[in-house]
Amino acid sequence: MSVEQEVLDANQNFYQAFNRGDLALMQSVWAQHDSVSCIHPGWEVLRGFDAIISSWENIFVGSENLEIKLSDILVTGAKGMVWVSCQENLFAMSMSGVQVSKVHATNLFEQVEGQWKMVLHHASSVPQLSRQEQINTN
Amino acid sequence: MSVEQEVLDANQNFYQAFNRGDLALMQSVWAQHDSVSCIHPGWEVLRGFDAIISSWENIFVGSENLEIKLSDILVTGAKGMVWVSCQENLFAMSMSGVQVSKVHATNLFEQVEGQWKMVLHHASSVPQLSRQEQINTN
Repeated sequence: MSVEQEVLDANQNFYQAFNRGDLALMQSVWAQHDSVSCIHPGWEVLRGFDAIISSWENIFVGSENLEIKLSDILVTGAKGMVWVSCQENLFAMSMSGVQVSKVHATNLFEQVEGQWKMVLHHASSVPQLSRQEQINTN
Repeated sequence: MSVEQEVLDANQNFYQAFNRGDLALMQSVWAQHDSVSCIHPGWEVLRGFDAIISSWENIFVGSENLEIKLSDILVTGAKGMVWVSCQENLFAMSMSGVQVSKVHATNLFEQVEGQWKMVLHHASSVPQLSRQEQINTN
């Protein structure tokens, strides 16, 4: 399997963990360094495996109606470290319809004992967020 | 010189280029790949050296009254690729005083022919932005 495909799979596992609210899978995605970092949109930076997993645990409590579909995926890197740049299209389902928010993510992976592990997730809203599409399902 | 110090110097050159509006220095900071990426706070992602340098050229036209001072600087990485996580404290000087905005930046560097070159700048507002400190200089 090519490095690009391996990293895309690791990236896919990250979003599958989010979409399923699967904490064990989320734990397996991240490198267990103190210096791993996670920036949720509009949050302060979180550092260290424990703080990051704890934040996902809290997020998963209220995320049953959220789903991320990716677009604009680009894999770049060299020499044992690779990052994925992608757009997160976040679908929020509610009684009144579906809201779509757009977030830009930088996901950095490092090769740890032959496996690609996430060492940085930096996510931030893109301008469209203020002009959220409303897809009325009524 | 340690890798950490070399990367901190490269990171410092990036912010010196901004604070001085020095386009030649900004050009020297970046790797000249098509896949380099830059995300200014709230902007769409820019890809490629030319698009990124062009954006800085436009930003520098109106940035004489802007200055960035860094805090919370952390250098992390391995194997030819290193990233700097830092908080940009952006000071905007005007007649009515000084406004401080806080931005979180991920700056990723790759070693190119012995020199550390920026391959990614991802900057996004942190929550304090909506509660901007007002330092009245009157």
